[in-house]
Amino acid sequence: MEQMTSRSNKKKVAVVGALNACFFAKRGFDVEVFETREDIRQAKIVKGRSINLALSHRGRQALKHVGMEEKIVSQGIPMHARMIHSQNGKQSPIPYGKKGQYILSVDRANLNKQLLTAAETYPNTKLNFDYKLQDWSAETGLMTFVRSDGLEEQIKADLIVGCDGAFSAIRKQFLRRSRFNYSQTYIPHGYMELTMPPINGEFAMKPNYLHIWPRNTFMMIALPNLDKTFTCTLFMPFEEFEKITTGNEVIEFFQKYFSDAIPLIGVDTLKRDYFRLPAQAMVSVKCTPYHIGDKCVLMGDAAHAVVPFYGQGMNAGFEDCIVFEEVMEQFNEDFSAVLPEYTRVRVPDDHAIADLAMYNYVEMRAHVNSRWFLFRKRVDNLLHFLMPKTIIPLYTMVTFTRTRYHECVERWQWQNKVINYGLLVSATGLVLGGSYLLIKNPPDINKLIIPAEKMWNRLMALRTP
Amino acid sequence: MEQMTSRSNKKKVAVVGALNACFFAKRGFDVEVFETREDIRQAKIVKGRSINLALSHRGRQALKHVGMEEKIVSQGIPMHARMIHSQNGKQSPIPYGKKGQYILSVDRANLNKQLLTAAETYPNTKLNFDYKLQDWSAETGLMTFVRSDGLEEQIKADLIVGCDGAFSAIRKQFLRRSRFNYSQTYIPHGYMELTMPPINGEFAMKPNYLHIWPRNTFMMIALPNLDKTFTCTLFMPFEEFEKITTGNEVIEFFQKYFSDAIPLIGVDTLKRDYFRLPAQAMVSVKCTPYHIGDKCVLMGDAAHAVVPFYGQGMNAGFEDCIVFEEVMEQFNEDFSAVLPEYTRVRVPDDHAIADLAMYNYVEMRAHVNSRWFLFRKRVDNLLHFLMPKTIIPLYTMVTFTRTRYHECVERWQWQNKVINYGLLVSATGLVLGGSYLLIKNPPDINKLIIPAEKMWNRLMALRTP
Repeated sequence: MEQMTSRSNKKKVAVVGALNACFFAKRGFDVEVFETREDIRQAKIVKGRSINLALSHRGRQALKHVGMEEKIVSQGIPMHARMIHSQNGKQSPIPYGKKGQYILSVDRANLNKQLLTAAETYPNTKLNFDYKLQDWSAETGLMTFVRSDGLEEQIKADLIVGCDGAFSAIRKQFLRRSRFNYSQTYIPHGYMELTMPPINGEFAMKPNYLHIWPRNTFMMIALPNLDKTFTCTLFMPFEEFEKITTGNEVIEFFQKYFSDAIPLIGVDTLKRDYFRLPAQAMVSVKCTPYHIGDKCVLMGDAAHAVVPFYGQGMNAGFEDCIVFEEVMEQFNEDFSAVLPEYTRVRVPDDHAIADLAMYNYVEMRAHVNSRWFLFRKRVDNLLHFLMPKTIIPLYTMVTFTRTRYHECVERWQWQNKVINYGLLVSATGLVLGGSYLLIKNPPDINKLIIPAEKMWNRLMALRTP
Repeated sequence: MEQMTSRSNKKKVAVVGALNACFFAKRGFDVEVFETREDIRQAKIVKGRSINLALSHRGRQALKHVGMEEKIVSQGIPMHARMIHSQNGKQSPIPYGKKGQYILSVDRANLNKQLLTAAETYPNTKLNFDYKLQDWSAETGLMTFVRSDGLEEQIKADLIVGCDGAFSAIRKQFLRRSRFNYSQTYIPHGYMELTMPPINGEFAMKPNYLHIWPRNTFMMIALPNLDKTFTCTLFMPFEEFEKITTGNEVIEFFQKYFSDAIPLIGVDTLKRDYFRLPAQAMVSVKCTPYHIGDKCVLMGDAAHAVVPFYGQGMNAGFEDCIVFEEVMEQFNEDFSAVLPEYTRVRVPDDHAIADLAMYNYVEMRAHVNSRWFLFRKRVDNLLHFLMPKTIIPLYTMVTFTRTRYHECVERWQWQNKVINYGLLVSATGLVLGGSYLLIKNPPDINKLIIPAEKMWNRLMALRTP
């Protein structure tokens, strides 16, 4: 057993996850970062998921705390609105919020690299790569790793912070304990990434948008990258992916549903890239409690993997760091009080965002096609403009504030009741008022036929296509 | 590697769980039963949960298939009704179904022993005790065990049947696979068992009942045993258990809530037994799919642990055997077709009984105290008597038929709508009819005062206390 010498008088914290390392290092803890993989900054080929991420307020606030916000934001591409591509090729934008509010498309690999470099600048932090966790004890804080040279190394930590992703190795030991509630739910959809190259050195579509092709049971989205490509992601039930087995079937399928994207991706690229990798699964993980005793805590995807449809996965994980920081402040870094309190305050919010992401999984691909949905979005935005503190659209609360996720949901349900009731009252008022005027001044019936026909046509147009 | 020689030309099935062994042996398979523990028939002290089990129709049908029904039923104690103990000591029975319908209190350990002996009578079955599963492959069917002599043994099976309980070792490998949906939910209540000894060689309470002391947030139940004792089980939130720390506090608590049970259990026994073991946790497990490829399938508690409040845990597990048998018949023992079909037909039913058990967790300790609940139970029973094929109480469908669990739930929801609507219409009819009669023949107002007062008192008494 090789004992690490302490570089300070502070407690030792073992973490997976570079942002968390910065938070603990900033507080003066003696921090050891462990990565199962090699240092991605030196790696030739970056393996793993390449999806770009949507960074918004919560994530930015966490980056700001460790002085990284500006750097990361400057390397992201602002997206001010969704751009809806209808089946006939028509494009219509739906803004994310008020003027000046936007989310950012950032590169996952680049973000990881920047955070590792930031963590390394703290003298009380050590990065360990190629360390495979063999065993650990929640009672003693002793962790056993196998290093890249094949030797074992043991490290004793005062706190083990498991931010080791949706398939967390740390979480496995939680599962063996009594009274640990856990669920993992795979959705019936898989995803597949396709690259849309630049055209004449420029973005093939308008860059400052998150492009969406909603098609009810499935959909495609596209996010811009710094190299002027777009990463297109096709979300579809696995059995639909499996039905397409030849290049020609791919083109036929795109011809039918995403015809405007074919010339932009390119027929040959499309035929080839569709078969490069099988469709990937998406999982939603919820659990509670997040801690064992006073020595281990789960954070980020390890505690709450969410489906990617609200663009909040990374933001929720980064916000965990702020919430933990707040609880640390409140309880004076006493882990035996901090850990239970962290579970108590954070679980309801993480469960709420997991549910919201699942809800948006339906909304993004189906509701966006409904005129009633678009009408309600406009009403919400108008009311938000008129009463900015009373009516706040759900998306705005989630994306552009730090309102606790579970409070966003509660407030949204309340607002919906109020607005729907208001719309009902207004509609009734209009009908009653109109009837009264008609009775008082009966108009020439012949003059009514044409406006009535127009109104009827409008009404018909309002129905979901 | 030690290869087992095949005792027949049939495929080899490795199972945990003696009832399943009988089913496969009866079909002529070469069956190996593996138990982690020693042979409980030889064990001096039987460890593990000692709760007695409630056997009803589904479980009996499975036992019947392997010729074990009569034997097990003869060793059980019929319970025709719940016996509700109110806080003031009053006892009132609520029958489980029609006359002659009853559930059976059976001894878990004895049942296990009988089933092992039954499995052993098949020449194509071998029982292996003290075999600890180290590893297994869903692809090859190869299982590695460590035997009691410390040696490893490998066995290759054509089908691995995992009925290894709520904390299944087999299920762990399912969890590592993609697209396996899983949830484990611990309820906030724990349970504790207390023994009520016989009095003068006779049962201390009426034996042919399941005694219930419903107290809203907690409850106690008691089931009769063949040795004329009752096993009392106290269900209570963990934090309530923890509040009671001394023998005197136990007595105080019982004095307040279960005073009629104190003389029957005995003050000294109560003071001692309460601290014998800490309260035990209860978990509800749901998952899907139940199979991997054509070589492994989960059944019983390993596939669907339920909380014990519907008395269906064992019955659902035993019914799994019948359903599997039916699918085997349908697909001619072709595992590659049988396993997916078993998942398809059985998952919705197991999930339904898990939900129902969770629902009854509230009903048993709280609703049973409500007069509206008792009134509705009586209405349901009356309607069942009048229209035995149209209206069937939920409990009857679940306990005394083999109606698929998910169909029981659907039918119950439909019946509730119809009955509640019927009650509303009848009440309205009574009011209208009464008003009409009153207007036609206005009675002397003074004669109405006393009956009105009586009716008012009745109505008041109908409210939940």
